[in-house]
Amino acid sequence: MDTRNPLFALMVERSNTAPKRLVAPGPTHEQLQLIFSAAAQAPDHGRIRPWRFVLVPSHKREDLGQAFVQALQMRDIQAGPAQLQAAYEKAFRAPCLMLAVLDKAPTQAEIETSERLISLGCAVQNMLLMAQTLRLGSGITSGKAMNAPSLRSLFQLTEHEQGVCFLNFGTVSTTKPARSRPVVEEFVSSL
Amino acid sequence: MDTRNPLFALMVERSNTAPKRLVAPGPTHEQLQLIFSAAAQAPDHGRIRPWRFVLVPSHKREDLGQAFVQALQMRDIQAGPAQLQAAYEKAFRAPCLMLAVLDKAPTQAEIETSERLISLGCAVQNMLLMAQTLRLGSGITSGKAMNAPSLRSLFQLTEHEQGVCFLNFGTVSTTKPARSRPVVEEFVSSL
Repeated sequence: MDTRNPLFALMVERSNTAPKRLVAPGPTHEQLQLIFSAAAQAPDHGRIRPWRFVLVPSHKREDLGQAFVQALQMRDIQAGPAQLQAAYEKAFRAPCLMLAVLDKAPTQAEIETSERLISLGCAVQNMLLMAQTLRLGSGITSGKAMNAPSLRSLFQLTEHEQGVCFLNFGTVSTTKPARSRPVVEEFVSSL
Repeated sequence: MDTRNPLFALMVERSNTAPKRLVAPGPTHEQLQLIFSAAAQAPDHGRIRPWRFVLVPSHKREDLGQAFVQALQMRDIQAGPAQLQAAYEKAFRAPCLMLAVLDKAPTQAEIETSERLISLGCAVQNMLLMAQTLRLGSGITSGKAMNAPSLRSLFQLTEHEQGVCFLNFGTVSTTKPARSRPVVEEFVSSL
């Protein structure tokens, strides 16, 4: 493994940071532009750009918190105050929060959903790596609320759109031990 | 846009190369290990590693060509000799060819298919960027043959696995003009 390769070193040092460990300062406007510009370089078969991102600024976190609460109430009528509070608080972590949205609308070039998700995954990885090179931490979150009516409504998703995950960016408050990664032999074979 | 950022420059200079324009030499053994090691650094919620890669070495290209032919015959009984020949020849391009396989088997941590595809997309982007930094070209290919019985059988995919795309690596024979990329404002909004 060539640790003299700076790109590889960057990939290795990036790891997921839970939103509660992502604190201010978040990315500056310029850094955020660079993170999105990185996303724009993802492979995109048929040039359909089957994804978009919706930022959740500070003054909309309250709305997101309420949407999380409604989503929980809808799927668990028995959810108690502590659970509802926890769902609500999820909206207030990480200084920079956005929803990654997949577009599944039919296009002239027939690009399957799986390929569209690969394109989005490529865009996401570009964003995570860009954040890392800017010395910002990042975390991906998702969960059962992702496509609840309350969230779909808040983010004004069209019928063909799907909320895939939230991306969180900020300054890492406390680091965790490096996580182990799969060994190449585990996932590569040859015909 | 900060062009002094070397990571961004790398992302911009990478673009898809059609397999017919990827020629020998392909990646060395060491380079290929580094490309796969890059894949291993992808986000992987629940640590389930929901993907694997299967290389198609030179002596198996013939088998792949036959599988492409069978796949075409199965979906188009009227396919003529020229079409069948074209399908066959697709197996012989790019010095380094592999299938990216998604694993959808249920796991203890419930990770949805969309999240698994995001993880695979992240792994793929790491591989493409690593190839680029090694001065190798890369291309993603897919198509209707992807999950034809003949291909599933050749790659010994389990019932829970799905062939998502082929990855091609090699030396770029002829470059094409830089492709245009989406503008950030097109795909970013705020609540």
